[in-house]
Amino acid sequence: MSRLARLAGLLPLMALCLFGCAAPALTDASDDAPLALKRQGSFFVGGRDLPSEDLSSLPVISPKGTVTVDQVYVRYQVPAAQHRRPALTFIHGCCLTGKTWETTPDGRMGWDEFFLRRGHPVYVIDQAWRGRSAVNPAGVNAVKAGKRAADTLPVYVVPGHETAWQMFRFGPDYPNAFSGMQFPLESQGEFWKQMVPDWSYSLAGTNPTVPALAELAGKIGGTVLVSHSQSGIYPFQAAALDARNVQGIVAVEPSACPAPQADLRPYRGLPTLIVFGDYVAQSPYWAARLKSCRDFMQAANAAGGRVEVQVLPDLGIRGNTHMLMQDRNSLQVAQWLEAWLAQRIAMRD
Amino acid sequence: MSRLARLAGLLPLMALCLFGCAAPALTDASDDAPLALKRQGSFFVGGRDLPSEDLSSLPVISPKGTVTVDQVYVRYQVPAAQHRRPALTFIHGCCLTGKTWETTPDGRMGWDEFFLRRGHPVYVIDQAWRGRSAVNPAGVNAVKAGKRAADTLPVYVVPGHETAWQMFRFGPDYPNAFSGMQFPLESQGEFWKQMVPDWSYSLAGTNPTVPALAELAGKIGGTVLVSHSQSGIYPFQAAALDARNVQGIVAVEPSACPAPQADLRPYRGLPTLIVFGDYVAQSPYWAARLKSCRDFMQAANAAGGRVEVQVLPDLGIRGNTHMLMQDRNSLQVAQWLEAWLAQRIAMRD
Repeated sequence: MSRLARLAGLLPLMALCLFGCAAPALTDASDDAPLALKRQGSFFVGGRDLPSEDLSSLPVISPKGTVTVDQVYVRYQVPAAQHRRPALTFIHGCCLTGKTWETTPDGRMGWDEFFLRRGHPVYVIDQAWRGRSAVNPAGVNAVKAGKRAADTLPVYVVPGHETAWQMFRFGPDYPNAFSGMQFPLESQGEFWKQMVPDWSYSLAGTNPTVPALAELAGKIGGTVLVSHSQSGIYPFQAAALDARNVQGIVAVEPSACPAPQADLRPYRGLPTLIVFGDYVAQSPYWAARLKSCRDFMQAANAAGGRVEVQVLPDLGIRGNTHMLMQDRNSLQVAQWLEAWLAQRIAMRD
Repeated sequence: MSRLARLAGLLPLMALCLFGCAAPALTDASDDAPLALKRQGSFFVGGRDLPSEDLSSLPVISPKGTVTVDQVYVRYQVPAAQHRRPALTFIHGCCLTGKTWETTPDGRMGWDEFFLRRGHPVYVIDQAWRGRSAVNPAGVNAVKAGKRAADTLPVYVVPGHETAWQMFRFGPDYPNAFSGMQFPLESQGEFWKQMVPDWSYSLAGTNPTVPALAELAGKIGGTVLVSHSQSGIYPFQAAALDARNVQGIVAVEPSACPAPQADLRPYRGLPTLIVFGDYVAQSPYWAARLKSCRDFMQAANAAGGRVEVQVLPDLGIRGNTHMLMQDRNSLQVAQWLEAWLAQRIAMRD
């Protein structure tokens, strides 16, 4: 796609941003008002029962029995507001949990509540094998019992602060920050507490979160899937499984987009926004991902897709890191996203 | 304690139950009304930074770096209601997470929302090294890398359904249920999805959740600590660390109470309720724990304590399992507990 064509593609969104982002207040006066919920709760989607001989290495608990894995924990809140907006499902990235979308490290309102206060039912998940979604300990216990070799242990990784610093584009290298960078570094300690080890690299085939998302979308009668980073590919895979209840996809800095040569029919007519923050050109890792998402956009749109790739500095929103839902201007980005949703996603009756 | 003395001790609570439990409706009409929150969010307490060389076995993520562990995830909701009731902090048990207190497996309101709707600020945690509270993967990765022997792998256990069935007193043995048992077995699949492996048996010394609870109590200016099962001892240990902001302890079927010969001064004047469900006599494991908690009660009260041990069938509430906050009559038990809180816990100004 030529630079001109790309610029032309941006124009509607830039106008949208001028309308949305230039508003004097980033939060409504009502954001301090009591929050009225119609209902809230939590449940699981997905999951399967497995027999195991390696559930325990404690004498008092039998190693033998049935264990349930691959399920996905979902916490939801439905606003009392009468004006109906599409349900949003928030899917965190690597080495994080649903906490990603809640209160920011510096104590401000998270995206979960921002969109709830604007009339969206909000669903926040923990990926399969993460957080409140169980892992199977058998892979560890079988090695502890001497039944399997140590090199069969799961890949179970968490980046250290120093590694994450660069991956999350707080700066070029730890502890140096990019100029104008908007992550609240004074509260980084609270952010490091959000990080958890990631078992997903040991899961064969499609991540179990994917069919669970398709199930969730059906169960709640339609939703926009909002991914982050590692989970970027999941909504596309869920739509390929069953697109009937996927009303749109918002991929926040996806680690991967579908390949241009993939079957692109599931994305025909599906409103899709892929958004990246600032400093992408300074990060070879993320620059490559932005490029591959643009290649996907071009191929998908040639096949009837409605994919947009947006890079926030092109819209005049600067300083965003990979954790843009937690940056100081997180609600400015949310407000821009809310305007995009209002323009692109039709409500179902 | 003689049987007569024990009966006499029960009388005030039995009266309380007659008042509370005999009310025609277990939920207020307002339980279906919109829920008004003053504020909500999530944060962490506790946590410490550790250097590590074993954070990753993936070539693309450095194994070296700083990791933060021992922190405790806290989700909270403060009701908009003007009448002030004490804050409650809910602490789950073994092989479970904060999900314990949310929507029941059969889709009814959890204790988190029940007490919120009655004016209590509610804090729900994930124990350290569980759920959204990170574990350190170094103990697995060092073995995978051949740097440590397989038998140094963490104790990482989850009971299978068949084992849990008996531990949770659904029945004498899987799949037989106790007569009149109130756990919603038709929804057991949703309950099994709540179970996660438990790393805590590998943590040396006092569980890091304990100082985190004391920190939380201080941070929020006072709270009643409500434990379950494995976490039963934590509130007592937290009060021993710093009792200033522990307004009361409710131990639901604790796996352990403090030893009668322990220093019992921290519990002087501290309203404490230890509650067990039904079928305890049929379970040697739980019968022994009930007995040891009664021994603690006697010793603590002789030293100025205000400890009560209640067994629900003695109050006319029958059929409760170890998961009494999820049993069919969970809100009847909650209503009884609410009456206890109203009588025993003074509000602070």
